[in-house]
Amino acid sequence: MEKKKEFKVAVAGYGHVGKDTVKTIIENNSIMEKRTGIKLTIKTIFSRNIDKVKDDKFLDKIEIKTKDLNDILNDNDIDIVIEVLGGMDTAKELLMKTNKPVVTANKALLANCFGELIKNRKTDIAFEASVAGAIPIIKAMKESLVSDRMENVYGILNGTCNYILTNMTKNNLDFKDVLKDAQDKGYAEADPTFDIDGIDTAHKLCILSSIAFCSVINFDKIFIRGIRNIILDDIVFASELGLTIKLIAEAALDNNDNAYIYVIPTLLNDKNMLSKVDYAFNAITVVGDRSGDTVFYGSGAGGRPTSSAIVSDAVTLARNSLITDELRIPILGFVEENKELKVKDFKEKNETFYVRFKSNNNNLLAFNEAFYDINIEKSVERNGNFMFVLKDVNINSIIKAIESVEKIEDIFIAKIK
Amino acid sequence: MEKKKEFKVAVAGYGHVGKDTVKTIIENNSIMEKRTGIKLTIKTIFSRNIDKVKDDKFLDKIEIKTKDLNDILNDNDIDIVIEVLGGMDTAKELLMKTNKPVVTANKALLANCFGELIKNRKTDIAFEASVAGAIPIIKAMKESLVSDRMENVYGILNGTCNYILTNMTKNNLDFKDVLKDAQDKGYAEADPTFDIDGIDTAHKLCILSSIAFCSVINFDKIFIRGIRNIILDDIVFASELGLTIKLIAEAALDNNDNAYIYVIPTLLNDKNMLSKVDYAFNAITVVGDRSGDTVFYGSGAGGRPTSSAIVSDAVTLARNSLITDELRIPILGFVEENKELKVKDFKEKNETFYVRFKSNNNNLLAFNEAFYDINIEKSVERNGNFMFVLKDVNINSIIKAIESVEKIEDIFIAKIK
Repeated sequence: MEKKKEFKVAVAGYGHVGKDTVKTIIENNSIMEKRTGIKLTIKTIFSRNIDKVKDDKFLDKIEIKTKDLNDILNDNDIDIVIEVLGGMDTAKELLMKTNKPVVTANKALLANCFGELIKNRKTDIAFEASVAGAIPIIKAMKESLVSDRMENVYGILNGTCNYILTNMTKNNLDFKDVLKDAQDKGYAEADPTFDIDGIDTAHKLCILSSIAFCSVINFDKIFIRGIRNIILDDIVFASELGLTIKLIAEAALDNNDNAYIYVIPTLLNDKNMLSKVDYAFNAITVVGDRSGDTVFYGSGAGGRPTSSAIVSDAVTLARNSLITDELRIPILGFVEENKELKVKDFKEKNETFYVRFKSNNNNLLAFNEAFYDINIEKSVERNGNFMFVLKDVNINSIIKAIESVEKIEDIFIAKIK
Repeated sequence: MEKKKEFKVAVAGYGHVGKDTVKTIIENNSIMEKRTGIKLTIKTIFSRNIDKVKDDKFLDKIEIKTKDLNDILNDNDIDIVIEVLGGMDTAKELLMKTNKPVVTANKALLANCFGELIKNRKTDIAFEASVAGAIPIIKAMKESLVSDRMENVYGILNGTCNYILTNMTKNNLDFKDVLKDAQDKGYAEADPTFDIDGIDTAHKLCILSSIAFCSVINFDKIFIRGIRNIILDDIVFASELGLTIKLIAEAALDNNDNAYIYVIPTLLNDKNMLSKVDYAFNAITVVGDRSGDTVFYGSGAGGRPTSSAIVSDAVTLARNSLITDELRIPILGFVEENKELKVKDFKEKNETFYVRFKSNNNNLLAFNEAFYDINIEKSVERNGNFMFVLKDVNINSIIKAIESVEKIEDIFIAKIK
């Protein structure tokens, strides 16, 4: 077997993450070589806007700077491709066409095309950077928990949402004011839809649940609610109950090995480590039947932390490129797909829920009666806002009960964990 | 290359961890095989007391049960050895003599003999289970943070100490009462020396710092203080400062790449995630120059969680046994040792410290004067206990200053982080 020690890398994409990846590989090359014996050399950088980059001392060190994707696809000298383009089209073209091992941070692409990507490729894909930045959650689930039945995986996977919720909670602020502040400070996009509606969180959950349950999860099977219609009253009510609201992504098995996979605002007890995760940080709890609860916490985004995950993946792919298929760790962490896995509708899963809705026409009693066969833990009316804590009930039943009294205009439902 | 899929395992040791390891391998074999394509079969169990084990449905399934270590050493049919003996002598004999890959949970052995073990062996050693039970901190440091300069690694690594400190803090109890309670409940040993004097914590720190700094760290270089002489007044004083006392193991680089490696009670700010880690749980923060702060939290001990780490290591060794030396991940996570690393004396490192000592003969003023060239943040006298918060000072200077007034009888020094 060849004793290859130097690997040529192409970086596709030269935005925030691309720049930091190039910087990390160049600046920390000696640390990496000391640890791994492997040397990564960036040969090519691809970017549609490469002409516009000025005064970049790292870019100056790269042999090929190109606007033509073929300069990566057709170069047999390149060993590993790092895809940090963002967006779907060019990234998908690159991943489908190249015959090199690819590191990607593209959670949207993975969540939507995992099955297709894996089926059509002979070489390896690594994607630690697609979920929770520098936190090594993918490797932990794929390699460290191989003997565990992962019963439950849940986490805070979107820094923007967590920044907004933390700020609302700590400073008693309204959603809109915090969102504007987050946009001004660059924590939230001008169009924050993907973040605040839970789509980004669900993309990451799609990847995590595929690994946890040994099945390629169809993104459409995920129930998604974001934080757009949360109000300060919800935060205050939660805090009166001694709970903290977080946007939680969760994948859980029931006793019959059916899966529920969902993103929903969740009220957490202060004994739960995730209730302590503030501002832009991410954290994931994995519950294994052997390992118990393990929590992974860290920077969920940002070029620098993401580059750490990307580079370690590149080293893994460098090693793997010389290892036979049978010995390589499988792309999603399983060799045999769990075809029996049934993803059930979260709207029919019984849980404890917090529910708030507006009503001008009815009194608390009418709603209490509508919930007559549901275990009501708490019910309050404040300025036309009706707030309930309901036990052992599902979302479909809640909505049906409220609609039996009145058409719902504005409803906020959160899980209580 | 051989497509070997079934690996024969020998388990040496049949105490708590040994039993749970056997149980996990047998009960979760189908999960493991689905994930990895690798099947582990236990062929042999070694234990000096194997005759005394009765009514054990798992043991009944094992082909060879033996009191003779040679039944492992001389059996060419065995692929991987799992060492969960505890103690030093037999474990060391096994690790030095066997030519098989070995999984070990033996932190004391590793901390004391790492250099010797690595030098004398041709095959792989894996030891995830030696530090913090199921938490995959070893793999994360060896593989996921390869491009990071790990500047600081610190954690709560001993469940017994953390159980005692948490109980003192939450229930306003004295050290001795909590220790007795912990012993009654089985959380602490009859002879708790290794735990409460920080030795066990230091063993684990020796392993973590070796990986962080790419050098085999000599255990004797570690500064160690335990929690034996902590009193309730310390807890109360810390809480008045808004801080929580934990026994922290820390390995830190200074700006000149010198290392400080120490175990010391530490007062943590409530913004530090480790301040939230209660009772028998463990957690480690790794600070990388790229990744930032990443925290790993989970069950630090117990047969079941430890077995999760052991079995994933066994799978790694199974894969590695068919991979050439050059491609295998190095035992301690580096191929080239950092020979320049200088481990400096923590007693000479300037930090912020909390200091408490008894004195009947002197007044607060005398000690304030003794600290005349030290930045005193706070000074209090309560019932003959003198308590100080001192900034930018080292332990040697503190002791010298106090001794200039009076011989010290009982001194408690904690770092403030």
